[in-house]
Amino acid sequence: MTTIAIDAMGGDYAPDEIIQGAIQGAKRYNIKVLLVGQPDLINQSVKKLDFPDKCYDIVEASEVIEMGESAAAIRKKKNASIIVAAKCVKQGQAQALVAAGSTGAAMSAALLYIGRIEGIERPAIGLVLPSSAPSPCILLDAGANADCTAEMLTQFALMGNVFMQSVYQIDTPKIGLLNIGEEAGKGNALALQTYDQLMHDGRFQFIGNIEGHNLFTGGADVAVADGFSGNIALKSAEGVMTMFRSILKNEFESSQRKKLGYLFAKPALKGAIRHVDPEEFGGALLLGINGVCVISHGGSHARAVENAIRVAVHAIETKVIDRITSQI
Amino acid sequence: MTTIAIDAMGGDYAPDEIIQGAIQGAKRYNIKVLLVGQPDLINQSVKKLDFPDKCYDIVEASEVIEMGESAAAIRKKKNASIIVAAKCVKQGQAQALVAAGSTGAAMSAALLYIGRIEGIERPAIGLVLPSSAPSPCILLDAGANADCTAEMLTQFALMGNVFMQSVYQIDTPKIGLLNIGEEAGKGNALALQTYDQLMHDGRFQFIGNIEGHNLFTGGADVAVADGFSGNIALKSAEGVMTMFRSILKNEFESSQRKKLGYLFAKPALKGAIRHVDPEEFGGALLLGINGVCVISHGGSHARAVENAIRVAVHAIETKVIDRITSQI
Repeated sequence: MTTIAIDAMGGDYAPDEIIQGAIQGAKRYNIKVLLVGQPDLINQSVKKLDFPDKCYDIVEASEVIEMGESAAAIRKKKNASIIVAAKCVKQGQAQALVAAGSTGAAMSAALLYIGRIEGIERPAIGLVLPSSAPSPCILLDAGANADCTAEMLTQFALMGNVFMQSVYQIDTPKIGLLNIGEEAGKGNALALQTYDQLMHDGRFQFIGNIEGHNLFTGGADVAVADGFSGNIALKSAEGVMTMFRSILKNEFESSQRKKLGYLFAKPALKGAIRHVDPEEFGGALLLGINGVCVISHGGSHARAVENAIRVAVHAIETKVIDRITSQI
Repeated sequence: MTTIAIDAMGGDYAPDEIIQGAIQGAKRYNIKVLLVGQPDLINQSVKKLDFPDKCYDIVEASEVIEMGESAAAIRKKKNASIIVAAKCVKQGQAQALVAAGSTGAAMSAALLYIGRIEGIERPAIGLVLPSSAPSPCILLDAGANADCTAEMLTQFALMGNVFMQSVYQIDTPKIGLLNIGEEAGKGNALALQTYDQLMHDGRFQFIGNIEGHNLFTGGADVAVADGFSGNIALKSAEGVMTMFRSILKNEFESSQRKKLGYLFAKPALKGAIRHVDPEEFGGALLLGINGVCVISHGGSHARAVENAIRVAVHAIETKVIDRITSQI
């Protein structure tokens, strides 16, 4: 049976929301989850939820890594839940790791205890973005590596290519370089050098530069970026949506007539907002790690964890890690 | 009388929409506009619009720079409308330049014919963003300089500081560095070096790192970024809004009941969308040029041009260029 190890202690709403999402995911995708953390706390959460006990096991881990702890701290806490969860994957007790705590801690634990795919310089965070196009785009790196080289970006292109082939069944994914203009010759020194490398690589279909709007409106299947600008693209997009929702709320509350309007529009609005909700579009993959690792944002509720499990299950089923390994 | 020179030939909807916006702006802000371009085409547009002729003059320029023309081409076309418009500012016939054509051409014309403020290494594009906070944030550089140094970013901070003091009457603007995390020590090599410089500069209030969401939801008055990540932040935010509007449209069209819901919600929705519409929040300033230069996006309609004139008028009235000059 497919088994996924979950850091039950990581995330703003751990352990309750993490465990609820994990067990919902286990039931939905017919898998088993290993809830890794402090057994007494986990048992308390599970009791509250009243789920059948067949779909989970508890794995003890006495320590917890808090948000914002340094990499040095992570190395010291050898019995932290995220580390024990990573070890479950390394030792074959689980086929994937799902974590909603600190991204840095998850990356460190994955690197130290699961390891990189041989030949991969640095893993990248790969996030499938919501899109108005029929098929979505994966952005990588969405924030793991602030400083990148053209060689790293070329590996990100390759990993994104395999991901879209495996998980989205696109034969020859369109690989775009996130840039500030579509024309060749645009961009900073790294973008220019990367453009040249991607153009001459030959292992994937490079379509040239893409811009920020293509991330959400189509045009490319894979958006390659350094982790600095990739993360800024993502957070700016999230920010503008937060702003828009706040403005929309104020507009609807500005008169009785508009309040009434909201009641009529609510079903369509909820549907559209759900489409762009970070809870909905699931976790990000740490591509380049020698195992399936999915990280969900720190503020994840149960639905986000359930969706992160969906991402992990798809990655396991489509053997995306094996396929990356064979192509590097 | 305040006079603004407008490149009547630049932009996707030139000359009609540009001229309509220019004349609307002239009437609204009680200024005169110089419509720079081919007189026969300008006269045709003006005739269609049937405006009083007191608020504009026509200045002849025989050539036009098309979108995507190289910098070399710009240098050759000495009688192009954007260049003649820039010369109007240099020679004192106008106090500001407004252009909706190629950003590169406007930047080149401004640099070559108006010049930099002494001591400024490179001008930046400063764009005031829509916000859900009571006071907006100016992002600079929004795309003029793909490769930046910490020294350039420090000058951007200084110019943004003066801008918010002058135009938004904020005594001590909060200056943030656009980064991928709030903690000190986050970011790429440039961000780390810039953080250090901004922290020790002393000429403005540096509040540390900010993230993409702060651009639109408050927290800083000035967001300092290299032109690469600044432009990506902007385009990603525009992209996600385009996506959301498209999804919302589909949702409202998905059933008769939802169509009815749209009719009731329309006033509030239009109000909210207007708030984030690039046509509405006006043009971007080329800060660091020794004169007021406002660029509007290539797809500007009349309303965007009218708003670009608003930005130019405010910059003239608040003497933002003089104040930057005196502080460098």
